[in-house]
Amino acid sequence: MQKEFITVKELYREKEQYIGKTVKVAGWIRTSRVSKNFGFIELNDGSFFKNMQIVFDEKVENFKEVGKLAISSSILVEGELVSTEGAKQPVEIHAKSIVVEGESDSSYPLQKKRHTLEYLRTIAHLRPRSNTFSAVFRVRSIAAYAIHKFFQERNFVYAHSPIITGSDCEGAGEMFRITTMDLNDIPKTEDGKIDYTQDFFGKEANLTVSGQLNAEIMALSFRNVYTFGPTFRAENSYTGRHASEFWMIEPEIVFADLEDNMELAEDMIKYVISYVLENAPEEMEFFNSFIDKGLLERLNKIVNSEFIRITYTKAVELLIESGHEFEYPVEWGCDLQTEHERYITEQIYNCPVFVTDYPKDIKAFYMRMNEDGKTVRAMDLLVPGVGEIVGGSQREEREDVLLDRINEMGLREEDYWWYLELRKFGTATHSGFGLGFERIIMYMTGMSNIRDVIPFPRTPKNAEF
Amino acid sequence: MQKEFITVKELYREKEQYIGKTVKVAGWIRTSRVSKNFGFIELNDGSFFKNMQIVFDEKVENFKEVGKLAISSSILVEGELVSTEGAKQPVEIHAKSIVVEGESDSSYPLQKKRHTLEYLRTIAHLRPRSNTFSAVFRVRSIAAYAIHKFFQERNFVYAHSPIITGSDCEGAGEMFRITTMDLNDIPKTEDGKIDYTQDFFGKEANLTVSGQLNAEIMALSFRNVYTFGPTFRAENSYTGRHASEFWMIEPEIVFADLEDNMELAEDMIKYVISYVLENAPEEMEFFNSFIDKGLLERLNKIVNSEFIRITYTKAVELLIESGHEFEYPVEWGCDLQTEHERYITEQIYNCPVFVTDYPKDIKAFYMRMNEDGKTVRAMDLLVPGVGEIVGGSQREEREDVLLDRINEMGLREEDYWWYLELRKFGTATHSGFGLGFERIIMYMTGMSNIRDVIPFPRTPKNAEF
Repeated sequence: MQKEFITVKELYREKEQYIGKTVKVAGWIRTSRVSKNFGFIELNDGSFFKNMQIVFDEKVENFKEVGKLAISSSILVEGELVSTEGAKQPVEIHAKSIVVEGESDSSYPLQKKRHTLEYLRTIAHLRPRSNTFSAVFRVRSIAAYAIHKFFQERNFVYAHSPIITGSDCEGAGEMFRITTMDLNDIPKTEDGKIDYTQDFFGKEANLTVSGQLNAEIMALSFRNVYTFGPTFRAENSYTGRHASEFWMIEPEIVFADLEDNMELAEDMIKYVISYVLENAPEEMEFFNSFIDKGLLERLNKIVNSEFIRITYTKAVELLIESGHEFEYPVEWGCDLQTEHERYITEQIYNCPVFVTDYPKDIKAFYMRMNEDGKTVRAMDLLVPGVGEIVGGSQREEREDVLLDRINEMGLREEDYWWYLELRKFGTATHSGFGLGFERIIMYMTGMSNIRDVIPFPRTPKNAEF
Repeated sequence: MQKEFITVKELYREKEQYIGKTVKVAGWIRTSRVSKNFGFIELNDGSFFKNMQIVFDEKVENFKEVGKLAISSSILVEGELVSTEGAKQPVEIHAKSIVVEGESDSSYPLQKKRHTLEYLRTIAHLRPRSNTFSAVFRVRSIAAYAIHKFFQERNFVYAHSPIITGSDCEGAGEMFRITTMDLNDIPKTEDGKIDYTQDFFGKEANLTVSGQLNAEIMALSFRNVYTFGPTFRAENSYTGRHASEFWMIEPEIVFADLEDNMELAEDMIKYVISYVLENAPEEMEFFNSFIDKGLLERLNKIVNSEFIRITYTKAVELLIESGHEFEYPVEWGCDLQTEHERYITEQIYNCPVFVTDYPKDIKAFYMRMNEDGKTVRAMDLLVPGVGEIVGGSQREEREDVLLDRINEMGLREEDYWWYLELRKFGTATHSGFGLGFERIIMYMTGMSNIRDVIPFPRTPKNAEF
């Protein structure tokens, strides 16, 4: 039956083809107003951000019934597509018949009046029917596709890194434990410890915090790979920037150094933004008008700018020289806080900035040690309005140096046996980075809370829907 | 630095452009043989299934060192691309210089001799460097992209369904529990029960077994959506067809009945197979030669056949009429076993077959009840060599009928409050299905164990790498 119904998107995009013809559409009533003899319905069919206006009068058999339909009722409409030059919408349908598919009622919670974003989170099963969320989740979908398209067109292999991990050695954050043990009767060993050999995987298992180490395996076989999947943090963080479950993109490239890595990150960010601007113009216009006034200008600027590249040492100098008073004072060796990152990218450069070569003590063990013995070949990409959006590094490809770092940081060598073997059997210069998918969606939509760019967000004390 | 190195894929695909020119490549030694004055290296750079033959002689400065390199050493080669008409490979590189990037050694476990697939699973960090696994995982990547491309080109919204779920009401299988509680000191309520209010999400939380119910939410906003993400089963199953973690694709379409659903599934399967045949010809040729002799013929046949559609009732009649002796006897009301499914699709039709309208008692509560009160609008797609590859249904869109089914099956109404509300506020005819991603990869590659189509498989007692 679906083919009978032309999508509203098609009627907008190919209107010349349909004007004057009888068409059928199916969708949900967003608003309606009815007078004695005729009525108007704003119909959304889910295929397109914009609504189709349905004009109907007493020629429609069930005129009275239709006139009384509550918001969000679903209807099947047959009528003529009419050009409406000069009106807000380029076309409308003059209905010949309207079939009621599914009635809604007056208790429908998404009425026309404005709701807070907080309230809308409690009706996550209905909020995608609002303008804001229909725009956010369509942009999310288009951006996800842009990422796949970007990498696949460049011959990257999409690698599914595991979600369940038997190692907790990634060190990127607090982890969720997975178990099938009966929590009322946890099996114990003779000396009273939890007997994980009796758990499902025969040992402790957690949800992954990063697919990077697995991506390195794949890259050292396929040259260029990327992951794109869910990752997890069991952190009791109630900020608008953190969720317990989020999607991450982690490319990894071989015979490639930090310069290649920065170039890839810059190309990818520009590609995704351009693709969304081109393929979701109505949604982006909406965000620019109602969510974040300067959005389109900012995004267009990014697409057309050359990203700056400076070292951490230079960044620290600039921050100190600026004389600006920060909440957290700056000195060489300190981790950069969001306030510092934003100052660099917004006040100093007003442009995206890569900061490279951080002190080894504030970065992970797998980052490549520089000649100076003090810094590592790390990079963070800072963008105006957000701060850090990408973090990555050239990886330590030298087995002996890597082993020193593992020991130096008090990690257990045996946890990394296969990671070390990658350096033993044909190691190669390689690099990679991570991009939090929700971060870039927030950046492109202007939405300021991560809960509002994930269809069904998971945060502390919240796993509804 | 990466741009310096042309990929082997490019040198094969665009050879006319490069023959006679000096090129640089970087990759890993798959095999080498050396005589006194010259040597041959089969170099794989990860970009392409096939190797590039490197011919070198004493003009190469470090001739002796290169000649002794162990398998899987990584090297950077500069030389002339030479046409080799009539040889196995269309081109080879006559090396001018070879730089050793990362030496391997003789303990490298993936030597030229054949290894069992079981053994290769124990070196999952190296097996993608073998022919079989480089082919499998590249096909996996290309197939994943084909799925996104198929749906995105049809204006479907990609919906990320949650991995962590607070409800265990999907009923599709055993679930993994997620917790951050201290298992040595589980908080208890006054009456001695586990106090889940103190757990991370404030209640019991599990890993999802299906994104379908969430996909229905999204579809009833966006008309056509799909999920593509990991799902989980905590089943102690040691077969070659089951993994604890696997990826699933679940499209959901609105204003669409079971006929639309079957058409979509058929189109999708054909699209993915065609796309892989077209974009991974070398890999598919390899599978056809070394893994499964009739593979290409079977896949081409599927792409060009019309899938059969029969009812469950008809299927049972045919099975009984066949006179074939099955391990599990067939009668109306029984669930079809793999032996029955394969008999239908292989012996009776020798072609993919949709079986529809199953008895309600062997199907899920959300499937649409037929007029007869006995069967539901379910569909399974059966394919030769595998059996069931897709399962789906038209969904029960009538609130009262759905509620009856929930009660009839002893489920708790309050667990489904939002699912029921979808039927209250503008319900609509809708349908969807699930495709296990690994199933179709196994089908397309001829690999018979699911552990061999997942880079880092998770199964009972196994969460390595």
